[in-house]
Amino acid sequence: MSRGNDTGRVLISITDWDIEQWLAAFRTAAPDRDFVTEPEGANDPSIRYAIVWNQPREVLSSLPNLELIFSLGAGVDHVLTDQSLPDVPIVRIVSPDLTMRMSEYVVWQVLDHFRQGTTYRSQQKEKLWKELPQPAASAMTIGIVGLGVLGVASARILHSLGFRLCGWSRTQKNVQGVDCYCGEAGLTNMLAKSDVVVVLLPLTPQTKGMINREFLEAMKQETPIGGPVLINAGRGGLQSEADISNALNSGKLMAASLDVFETEPLVQDSNLWENPAVTVTPHVAANSDPETLATEVVDQIANFENGLIPTGVVDRNAGY
Amino acid sequence: MSRGNDTGRVLISITDWDIEQWLAAFRTAAPDRDFVTEPEGANDPSIRYAIVWNQPREVLSSLPNLELIFSLGAGVDHVLTDQSLPDVPIVRIVSPDLTMRMSEYVVWQVLDHFRQGTTYRSQQKEKLWKELPQPAASAMTIGIVGLGVLGVASARILHSLGFRLCGWSRTQKNVQGVDCYCGEAGLTNMLAKSDVVVVLLPLTPQTKGMINREFLEAMKQETPIGGPVLINAGRGGLQSEADISNALNSGKLMAASLDVFETEPLVQDSNLWENPAVTVTPHVAANSDPETLATEVVDQIANFENGLIPTGVVDRNAGY
Repeated sequence: MSRGNDTGRVLISITDWDIEQWLAAFRTAAPDRDFVTEPEGANDPSIRYAIVWNQPREVLSSLPNLELIFSLGAGVDHVLTDQSLPDVPIVRIVSPDLTMRMSEYVVWQVLDHFRQGTTYRSQQKEKLWKELPQPAASAMTIGIVGLGVLGVASARILHSLGFRLCGWSRTQKNVQGVDCYCGEAGLTNMLAKSDVVVVLLPLTPQTKGMINREFLEAMKQETPIGGPVLINAGRGGLQSEADISNALNSGKLMAASLDVFETEPLVQDSNLWENPAVTVTPHVAANSDPETLATEVVDQIANFENGLIPTGVVDRNAGY
Repeated sequence: MSRGNDTGRVLISITDWDIEQWLAAFRTAAPDRDFVTEPEGANDPSIRYAIVWNQPREVLSSLPNLELIFSLGAGVDHVLTDQSLPDVPIVRIVSPDLTMRMSEYVVWQVLDHFRQGTTYRSQQKEKLWKELPQPAASAMTIGIVGLGVLGVASARILHSLGFRLCGWSRTQKNVQGVDCYCGEAGLTNMLAKSDVVVVLLPLTPQTKGMINREFLEAMKQETPIGGPVLINAGRGGLQSEADISNALNSGKLMAASLDVFETEPLVQDSNLWENPAVTVTPHVAANSDPETLATEVVDQIANFENGLIPTGVVDRNAGY
């Protein structure tokens, strides 16, 4: 399998993001390698690797020597929705840096709800000195929907903070310290036990629109902090924002932290922006800096050229 | 040392807090024991234990059979400032519940500053979808001033989130994963390395007013999140609020989270309330519920009566 010095060119194909910043990061990470942002014609034989985020459709379809596609994210829904995608292995980011950032976001938002940040900030505005009843972490169950690398890493730190954990995954998993559920009935049972629900699922045809009225109504209603909380740091396509708004308005849902949205940027007329029970962040839960990810992808390419199987090869049937 | 069934009465002496709630909690925790809120006369011989929070002066001074004083907090400054305090061992709270709550508060506030919560919340108000540059946790050093039980527990969880840690204590300590400093020069060196400084010291004559202009100016100025951040969850007496305000106004300090204040409740005309760079909470970082602490204190008394030395006996000379 060793390809020696026969390194091949690398296509960086990105929409939505600043491509120049990524190009610079990759050129710094591998100065001897040839990075381009467009193929030379539809059948450019020089391209061996593609590094993509929401690549323009058709751009990958007819590159005769393409060997690997790298997604610049943990999710690959943006890659797989390309109907013209060639039959080449897709590698997603499995980066300690990205994993740590996602754990940070989850712990940050869980603690902000649990420690009643919104109420304390509002009391500060009113110059009100008033202690709120505060349950112990051990009285709270955090439910992690999606027990992949990100979900397990987040669960581990929440566990060390004393929270009880339960989790759901498509196939049965065993995670230390986490009460694990799977399957459709498993999801309903798990939601009924969770005081805070954290969604870290990939977006696939099976998970699309999953956070809907039925999901929200299955969540535990009586919780130690006064009501159920939803945190979605997976993909916006997982959620129905209309159903979330309705659940918030009817009191079925007490609060939410949403980092992802059905349409991004979140549309100006969304009522989520102004809902005081909602924390909106602009899809920043786990955005690694280009320098870190470029180094990791370049290492993956070098390992591949030395005959190693890349970390994070996607199962196209599962969609992640 | 065993005292068998000779249990003695317990005086609960509390100001500022709701004494009825504490009395009820203790009576639930030990239904067979006799709890009172006032001695029967200044020389009541029936009182063997006192459980106190900011006890009225003189109340403990002449109880002839008093054997132990329990502080209902991790700090004992509120006990020791009583000039009439008898020479009886003082036991402070060393409670897993309290320790966990303090770790929660520290991690919550560190993450809120690190993940730029104030700016994102302000952007949400403006319906602004804008990603902010976000360093990795590994690029940040959190400095813990005070490496007691609370400081070490907080450091452990921050370490698991990928932050670099340094710490300072009066006497040299060795804590895994923490770059430890001590002494006056050690403090200056440690502050110069810390992007966020978390103060978890006891209030003693030596630490009073320690967070002053000199302390704040010793803090690292250039940090990955744009400036230095102070978090004080120890005691208000550790800080000069005038110096903190001046440092915020001059830009020497970028932001602060203060849970404790020179005068509590924080006075209405303090400019800290309205400073958008300051997070004010009403001394709630680590308030255990009465039920949990009552159970722990009652267990300590039972252990003492079975001849065990209580956990958390205070060194009066050190003041903690």
